[in-house]
Order: sequence, then structure tokens, then C-alpha cells
Amino acid sequence: MSRALVVSILLMAVIGTASGGDAPKAKPATMAEVLAKSSATDWRPLNPENTLYVELATGRVVIELAPDFAPNHVANIKVLAREKYFDGLAILRVQDNYVAQWGDPDGEKPESARKIRKAKRTLPPEFERALKPEVPFTLLPDGDVYAPEVGFSKGFPVARDTKAGKIWLTHCYGMVGAGRDNAIDSGSGTEIYVVIGHAPRHLDRNVTLFGRVVQGIDLLSALPRGTAALGFYEKPEQRVPIKAIRVAADVPSSERTSIELLRTDTPLFAELIESRRNRNEEWFHVQAGRIELGNVPLPVRPRSTVIRK
Amino acid sequence: MSRALVVSILLMAVIGTASGGDAPKAKPATMAEVLAKSSATDWRPLNPENTLYVELATGRVVIELAPDFAPNHVANIKVLAREKYFDGLAILRVQDNYVAQWGDPDGEKPESARKIRKAKRTLPPEFERALKPEVPFTLLPDGDVYAPEVGFSKGFPVARDTKAGKIWLTHCYGMVGAGRDNAIDSGSGTEIYVVIGHAPRHLDRNVTLFGRVVQGIDLLSALPRGTAALGFYEKPEQRVPIKAIRVAADVPSSERTSIELLRTDTPLFAELIESRRNRNEEWFHVQAGRIELGNVPLPVRPRSTVIRK
Repeated sequence: MSRALVVSILLMAVIGTASGGDAPKAKPATMAEVLAKSSATDWRPLNPENTLYVELATGRVVIELAPDFAPNHVANIKVLAREKYFDGLAILRVQDNYVAQWGDPDGEKPESARKIRKAKRTLPPEFERALKPEVPFTLLPDGDVYAPEVGFSKGFPVARDTKAGKIWLTHCYGMVGAGRDNAIDSGSGTEIYVVIGHAPRHLDRNVTLFGRVVQGIDLLSALPRGTAALGFYEKPEQRVPIKAIRVAADVPSSERTSIELLRTDTPLFAELIESRRNRNEEWFHVQAGRIELGNVPLPVRPRSTVIRK
Repeated sequence: MSRALVVSILLMAVIGTASGGDAPKAKPATMAEVLAKSSATDWRPLNPENTLYVELATGRVVIELAPDFAPNHVANIKVLAREKYFDGLAILRVQDNYVAQWGDPDGEKPESARKIRKAKRTLPPEFERALKPEVPFTLLPDGDVYAPEVGFSKGFPVARDTKAGKIWLTHCYGMVGAGRDNAIDSGSGTEIYVVIGHAPRHLDRNVTLFGRVVQGIDLLSALPRGTAALGFYEKPEQRVPIKAIRVAADVPSSERTSIELLRTDTPLFAELIESRRNRNEEWFHVQAGRIELGNVPLPVRPRSTVIRK
């Protein structure tokens, strides 16, 4: 919480873990130490077919899609993007400590609403999916207020209920969902929201999440808040235009965002969780010894320029 | 998550709770219904002696101080404000999903650092306080990942440990603390941070919290994020100047912000908690039946123009 902390963290990053087998038991690692010893296989690239670029005047928001959890919404949103449905629409709503949301400003006027060609206007909900053995799950050990168990699956924060045999994406910071009206099958991805505040977990299983912002969240979270009810912008000129939304696979390779994400199904990620349960950076006085789902970081870094084939 | 939701919530607000004793069991109330039936005594004004105004070019951030939890920090920060220590300093750091922080840009250069007259440069930490019977506590029923018990006391989110006999303020959205260096007694309120993201509860009992933003948080949370390490602004011109920080009691009555806050020690507040554990607005498909500390709203409204004496 101070400028001195900058120095401590940077120092920590270069100290690394240098404990020998017979040396006095080392303090648990810091996250910087864990990341410093990661190998190439601890990271994964984004699949361009499952990546959306939201192009704003201020830059690009990169969203990783979650076809394992919301296959129909992901497919429909890719169709919408490929129809250029979103191009020229706008961010209509930014509610503090809650969500930023975009869609068609004229969506409720049948005569002027943006037309859809092949995509679907509404879809059945994908609030949860069957828990199958092949779905990876890295359990967090400290419990959760809302769900029987929480953890990570394929890079996404998730909750599961083994008795009910269900697993679902959770409303953590940066998660992306398909807005809907009161009918649970009234969403489809034509209106999209991103969580920009404290995890509104009461929305879990009430609305279909289909992805997560992995880069550029600040282009949404730092937008002016809307002053109408629910954070809608009062005046059309306050809306933030969306230049385009593209599937990364449709963008020339040279124009893609080259990043990679830490895998969440590795021993290294388990070490990272421990490093955050027990913070050993010099600044900390007491360690929580526990961690809540929304406080586990999901590291992203520029992708190595060496192409691995 | 949709524009239709605006309508539903507004409608709910005027429906009210109209269930008679013998009528079929009514659905639990919504928050709008709970607030609609609140009486004047469910609300409390701010004490001007325990209220800080942070004056920015964009408006005023109102902070309620917590002298019951951090008496020495609150006293020192009031001395600093009255010395005009903060006037002309700047917001130096805005880290996404974490904190906004202000202080003296030249604080680490002894020759040019802002001088302090009567206030203290450092203070012993006030990370927790003794749990005494006279400290009110409204318990949340659904547990917490980090602490044995959590709830609200005097309008602030708190955790307590009855075995250890301690109670402490928690790092929820909008909470305000005194930045420190590595030594736990190195803070004093000369550098102040505000939580603008998912509650970083691992900071609890590591740094002294002394208040909460009760109005104007969006003037901080919507600021551009700093791009240097820890969200510090890289260039001096990116910093956001602080025009002044004043104790509200020192501001003429006519220039004070006239708001009141929902009390957290009333039966009505307990009803509000229930209304958020079980969301009965028409939009909700499943109710969480639970609530986490960071998701309990603390309503604020313009103060009635009728002065109650």
C-alpha cells in the first residue's frame, strides 16, 4: 500500500527460490517466486477460435470464450461477431462496483433495432453443466460462502456441487455474460456484460456466463459511471462506441494480441494458490492462511516470440 | 443485466409489502420494498466531526471516519486535514481491481517533502480492537472465508473473533486505510488508499482501516489506471490533484453534503440482509439463499430537509 512496496515486490521477483534440500526450511514462496520458476508448459496460448476482440477507441479488450461451459452462447456470439452485429453498437451501462454492459441502443425499437441474420435472438440458458470426470477442477481449500466447492477449470473460476453433479462459471471480476430480460431464455449474447466490481455471486446460475476478460479490463472498469438507474448512461453522447467485435481467428496473425495465460491445472498453479493463501512478501504482518475465489490471480504475460509447434 | 430490469426494479419499488396477517404467505421483501417502509429512525446522519471531504476537480468524495476502530489514525488524519497537509497533493496510484491511493509525490525526498506541523508522521497500528459488549454487531448468517464471523458495526463491515476477543474493520469496497511501508508502525494517514475492487481481505489486520467512502467512490474508481508497477502513474502529469481535504465540521453548513445512511443495528437492516440473501426481484431465477459480506449494500440517501432536533 505504499511506494516502498514497489521496491519490495520487484526485489522479491528477482530473488527466486534458492533453497537447497538440506538448507533450513525456506519460507513458502511468493507469487513472484512461483512465476519466476514457471516453465513454458505452465502457460497456454489463447485459441484464436475461442477469443473475442472488443475494439474500442481506447484499445482492445480481449475475452477468452468458454465453449466448455456455454457452447451455444459461444457459438451464437461468434456468429453475431462474424455478422458484424456489434460493430457500431455501444457500451450503454457502467454501474459502479458491478458491471459494464453493451448492446444495441435501439434494441427495443423494432423498426430501428440492429438486424440479425443467421444468429439467434434468444437461446436456452446455460447456467450450469453436468459435472463429468473429464472436466478438470483445481479445488480451493478454504470454502466459499455461496457454493459447496469452488476452484478453477480450464482457466475459469468455477463452483461445483458434486451431489447435484453440476459445475458452473462464477461471477468473479472480469467474467463476461449474456444479459437477459426476465425470461431465462431471453438472452443470446446480443447484450453482453462484464463484471467490474466485487464478485456479484448471487448472479451465479441466474444468467449465462460465457467468457472472461484476460486483457484490457481497465478499458471498461475505468469508464465513467452512468448516472441513470442501474448505471445506464443518460445521454446518447455519453455512450462508448464499439468499433468492432471480432473472433481473433478472423484477424490477421500479425494483428492478434500475443499473450499467454497461466494454466490452472498444474502443480505450479497449486503453488501459486499457496503463495496467495500465505503472503510472504516482506510487507505482510499476518498471513490470512486462507483465500477466497475472487482473490486468486490468473496471470497473463506476453507470449514468447519463439513459436512452439 | 438488461434494460428491462430497470423497469422491473422500479416497479418493485412502488409495489411495497402489502401482506395481511391471514393472507397467503407473501414472498420475502425485495430491498426496494424494505427501504420503502423504512422510517426516519432507520437512518442516521453523518457526524461532521467524523466526516472527511476529499475535494477533486470532478467533485467531492465523502468519507465516514471510524473513530471507534482507529481512534489514533482518525485523530491524526483530522489534524493533517486541519493543517491543510493534503491540499495540493495528488492521487498517485490507481491499480485496477484493487486500490486508489493518494499522498505526497515528493514524500520520499526529504528536502521537498510536504512538511508536517502538529500531526504525527507515524503511528502504532490499529489493526483490530478489543471486542467489548458495547460494540454493536449485526451478524451475517452465512459465514466467511477469512474470519470466524463477519457482519456490520456502526455502519462498517467488520469481522470478529470472539475467542480472541477482537473485532476489526474489513477490506470491502470503498473502505479507506492508511498506507504504510514494511514496518507496521510506519503509517499515519499521510498516504491514504481506498479499495476500488474485489475485497482484498488478505489485507485485513495488515494495515489500518479508518473509514469508508459513503459518496463519490466513482470519482476514484473510474480514474484511469496507472501503468507503472502497482498502478502508480508513470508521469507526473497523469496524477490527479487533490484540491483539499477538509473535516466536514470545518466546512460551512450550507456547503456540506446532506446525506444520511441506513443504520446497521436495526430490525430493518436485518430485513434488508434477508432481502439480499433471497432476491425476489422478478428477474431472479434462483436465489442464493446466502450472502457474502462484500455483497451487502449500505444504502445512502439525500437527507430529509426537515431538520430533526
